[in-house]
Amino acid sequence: MARTITQVENDTQLGHQVLEQLFSHGGTAHLIGITGPSGAGKSTLVNALVRRYREQMPEKKVAVIGVDPTSPFSGGALLGDRVRMRDICADTGVFMRSMATRGTLGGLAKTTAAVVAILDAGGYDPILVETVGAGQAEVDIARLAHTTIVIEAPGLGDDVQSSKAGILEIADILVVNKSDHPGAEGVVQSLRSMIEMGTVDRGEQTQQTEPDQWIPPVISTIATQGQGIIELMDAIGQHAEIIHQNGDYQRKENARMQAWVQQIFQEELMKNWQQADSYQNYAKIIQEVTERKLSPYRAVQQLLKQ
Amino acid sequence: MARTITQVENDTQLGHQVLEQLFSHGGTAHLIGITGPSGAGKSTLVNALVRRYREQMPEKKVAVIGVDPTSPFSGGALLGDRVRMRDICADTGVFMRSMATRGTLGGLAKTTAAVVAILDAGGYDPILVETVGAGQAEVDIARLAHTTIVIEAPGLGDDVQSSKAGILEIADILVVNKSDHPGAEGVVQSLRSMIEMGTVDRGEQTQQTEPDQWIPPVISTIATQGQGIIELMDAIGQHAEIIHQNGDYQRKENARMQAWVQQIFQEELMKNWQQADSYQNYAKIIQEVTERKLSPYRAVQQLLKQ
Repeated sequence: MARTITQVENDTQLGHQVLEQLFSHGGTAHLIGITGPSGAGKSTLVNALVRRYREQMPEKKVAVIGVDPTSPFSGGALLGDRVRMRDICADTGVFMRSMATRGTLGGLAKTTAAVVAILDAGGYDPILVETVGAGQAEVDIARLAHTTIVIEAPGLGDDVQSSKAGILEIADILVVNKSDHPGAEGVVQSLRSMIEMGTVDRGEQTQQTEPDQWIPPVISTIATQGQGIIELMDAIGQHAEIIHQNGDYQRKENARMQAWVQQIFQEELMKNWQQADSYQNYAKIIQEVTERKLSPYRAVQQLLKQ
Repeated sequence: MARTITQVENDTQLGHQVLEQLFSHGGTAHLIGITGPSGAGKSTLVNALVRRYREQMPEKKVAVIGVDPTSPFSGGALLGDRVRMRDICADTGVFMRSMATRGTLGGLAKTTAAVVAILDAGGYDPILVETVGAGQAEVDIARLAHTTIVIEAPGLGDDVQSSKAGILEIADILVVNKSDHPGAEGVVQSLRSMIEMGTVDRGEQTQQTEPDQWIPPVISTIATQGQGIIELMDAIGQHAEIIHQNGDYQRKENARMQAWVQQIFQEELMKNWQQADSYQNYAKIIQEVTERKLSPYRAVQQLLKQ
């Protein structure tokens, strides 16, 4: 599995062939995206969650992908995670993989999609995609999951909850970890009122709440002690059930595949073009832009004509 | 200026036309990229630097672009920056603009390039591009500058300097801000030894150091008191001089224009394709991928054939 994934990650011909063979065997795994600011205890929670899955459903293999699209400044986070996750690493029913590229966000999303497809075909279910850091990149990768969990914790130095309104757009489940720390109840309350406001905003209060409409629960956990993990597992299960019923699962799968195909397609279009005759003029045109003889938009018009 | 930039940011036809008219008038401004982890005091330093530029060269107008490509989790940072920068905002020789999009990194880099071109044509020089946060996105945007400054500070909770080796690849000048805080001298020392090791690694110790080779200086500052800012300005001036001599300036300009043209070109290729007949099949093909009847790579092959 590890060697196959390396081929896929390196975008080799062999990697493509393997993916070709395995792709049709996937489509069953539930993808769980986990994101949130650093210091919220994501890795500890993932660790606790995986252990609980293995205890409750020992027949199921679980995979964890740690994605770090961040910079040199935050380097080393993944190593730390691995150390903390040592106890689940010894379990042969658990597959773990860290991914960090310095390439484009699109490239990372593409590779993540391919690795997920391999693990999916290999019978891993659920597959957890943990994104380290809290940038837009991580959010984008997390939202490709079927169930997206956003982890918060008290005392992270950002009391202005209103600035976090964006997380409601992506979170299917909200977790307030470190719920034994001071201020945890406040975080829970403000998240709950944000969810209520969001529901009112969408004008849903005037209507009957539809039976298959999902309202993100807020779950308190103490990951270091395993507290609240069963509740989190249950919420994930309920969310999975509802999205299978209301069609969101299919819509999410469709969006995920479209994002993947589009990324490959863009790369191929560029590759094809770089092999074409028109590419010969490219360096010359860029030089003219650098000399301010040609604007970038005119340059692109010329390139497109060719 | 502000209204023109809004047109350019929104990618309107008028924005393109204005850029078309103004583009050839640019190419003189020196671009300074400023990045580093949060808490290092980037905004205070930018504030101090801008004030010093205005004092020393009052005939020059200075522009500051604050770029925030980060997520909902860190929202609000730019507002804080503006408050801290209030005193330079009153100076009519200083133009400030915050940019934050939730779009792609490529989109943000493209817009930043366009805004820089407008300011450049408008006679602003230098143009400072401050990137908030410390993700790969910020690094990518900062490295498009002629001179990239990386700011560090003591006490940011990351003593493993080796994990920061990546910053040497992008930094032309290193700043240790808050140099009156405990541990500052240690940060300076470890950055200096990293630079020395980097120089040795490249095998440059055995040769004579070339006269136009740039070795990143490490400058200590206390931005709140304006200390070290003159030294920083001098270092920027020296770096500008050297890269004009050794050809790096032209190479950087070329790379910057190429990145910009390529981004526009990719978008146009996709737009053209979405208007073509072949696009009709797109939804059908994505559906087949979702149903695992077709792998993403085969899907792209089909799309390319059409």
